[in-house]
Amino acid sequence: MTRLVSGLLLMTAAAVAADEWKMPDPARTVYLDLPDGRVVIELNPAFAPETVARFAELIGQGFYDGLPFYRVIDNFVAQGGDPAETREIEGGGRNLPAEFERDWNDDELVFVPAQAPDLFAPETGFIDGFPAARDPATGKVWLTHCYGTVAMARGNEPDSGTTDYYIVIGQAPRYLDRNLTVFGRVVTGMEHVQRIRRGPAKTNGVYEDPAKATDMVRIRLASEVPEDQRTVVRRVDTEDDSFKALLESRRDRQSEWFHHKPPEVLDVCQVPLGAEVLKSPANPHNAR
Amino acid sequence: MTRLVSGLLLMTAAAVAADEWKMPDPARTVYLDLPDGRVVIELNPAFAPETVARFAELIGQGFYDGLPFYRVIDNFVAQGGDPAETREIEGGGRNLPAEFERDWNDDELVFVPAQAPDLFAPETGFIDGFPAARDPATGKVWLTHCYGTVAMARGNEPDSGTTDYYIVIGQAPRYLDRNLTVFGRVVTGMEHVQRIRRGPAKTNGVYEDPAKATDMVRIRLASEVPEDQRTVVRRVDTEDDSFKALLESRRDRQSEWFHHKPPEVLDVCQVPLGAEVLKSPANPHNAR
Repeated sequence: MTRLVSGLLLMTAAAVAADEWKMPDPARTVYLDLPDGRVVIELNPAFAPETVARFAELIGQGFYDGLPFYRVIDNFVAQGGDPAETREIEGGGRNLPAEFERDWNDDELVFVPAQAPDLFAPETGFIDGFPAARDPATGKVWLTHCYGTVAMARGNEPDSGTTDYYIVIGQAPRYLDRNLTVFGRVVTGMEHVQRIRRGPAKTNGVYEDPAKATDMVRIRLASEVPEDQRTVVRRVDTEDDSFKALLESRRDRQSEWFHHKPPEVLDVCQVPLGAEVLKSPANPHNAR
Repeated sequence: MTRLVSGLLLMTAAAVAADEWKMPDPARTVYLDLPDGRVVIELNPAFAPETVARFAELIGQGFYDGLPFYRVIDNFVAQGGDPAETREIEGGGRNLPAEFERDWNDDELVFVPAQAPDLFAPETGFIDGFPAARDPATGKVWLTHCYGTVAMARGNEPDSGTTDYYIVIGQAPRYLDRNLTVFGRVVTGMEHVQRIRRGPAKTNGVYEDPAKATDMVRIRLASEVPEDQRTVVRRVDTEDDSFKALLESRRDRQSEWFHHKPPEVLDVCQVPLGAEVLKSPANPHNAR
């Protein structure tokens, strides 16, 4: 008899309704090809318009191709980019503005609540497939640092991001919220990201010899790849009633499996955001 | 110029003091050898005496050797064991008692506080290197489900655990606290655990064909391995003043890097528990 860790069973049951799926727009979908497989990232221009534009521009220039993940810390982040500034940015201009938070706007955004208060914010929830938080007192809303979050690194100044980005690969570092520009989220392929080689602990994860680090093979915008060679994914529609029901079933656990009923709270970063690959090209690394 | 994600820099600075290290007792240290490398697990008999005794007994019998990780869900758990009950347990007896929580005892336990209240518990902190939580109202204390937690799976009944165990590989599933017996923690080698192949999503991570799953190569108690062939590790001493200073520096972020000062809270599962391998045998897979 199989003894299972319960918990995700409810997720599976709630995730079958076809109407809860959404197909990310190819113009805001990125294929990050790693040696082990393809990672699909959804960009978020509603929160980080300038960073998304720059990232897409750099991708189009082939700026990132072959650059290593030069700082990789288990249970924290895998960071790539061009820290030594060896590559030219076509069109010039390096520093990106801070896009750490934005104003709430009822006409534009739909907030599906998860938790209030959360440990790190007055309110957490989901906005168009992304974990988010907001503060009713200030009217500000921001994307949270969760597993799979893609964000832009920076120096000491808020507006000092350029090309270096990171993917969160462990326990949500929520203390970074509103301190860095979150501009995307890994939708599928985190298992490939997890195979990126960790850097030396003594240098805080930074490779002294970048040749030992894991290279990104290639990165492309889905919309720039011919349609028959795209990886087609769908992810949960966080505004759908079935997702709201999933949230409720995880907040208020009814299963008899729970010997000790958990407190009726939700960690916004622990809610599984279901996604699946519907169609893969035969060899994604050859597809252009 | 390197643009870093800040945050862990403070950890590194606070972790250099030699007196904050502790060497886990070899009799409660497990080597889990995966195809990709060695994982070192510290067992916790103070919280799960019967489960630890059984696990050590099974290890001594070679019970787990070569068994696959038959249920692996990214950002959740990697689960191994013998779900089909194909193997005999020498000495008989299958079901393990629930060791979900225990009584607080001032003479025996030292609690180093992290957060009160936490989202999932009245109080969280660390007990002898393990993330934990307690409830002053009931006098109960328990080990929390964090990244790297090792726990025993079970069926519907609390006392139905047998041989199947799991390792948490993603965002802390704290709602499982007090519902399963946490009996250990990965001290080093989580990057190897992360390379375990994920199971199919359609079967909730369970391999229909176990041959496709990642095998454990071998598992041994450190004390049963000749001393010159052991992997020597040390991990942070959570009772040391330098660790308490680390907690404080993470709760109250003083660095000017923080554009938006985070709320003064700690996620007990997001505090890095430093550890390092001091000595590795040339080929751990051959060491006995």
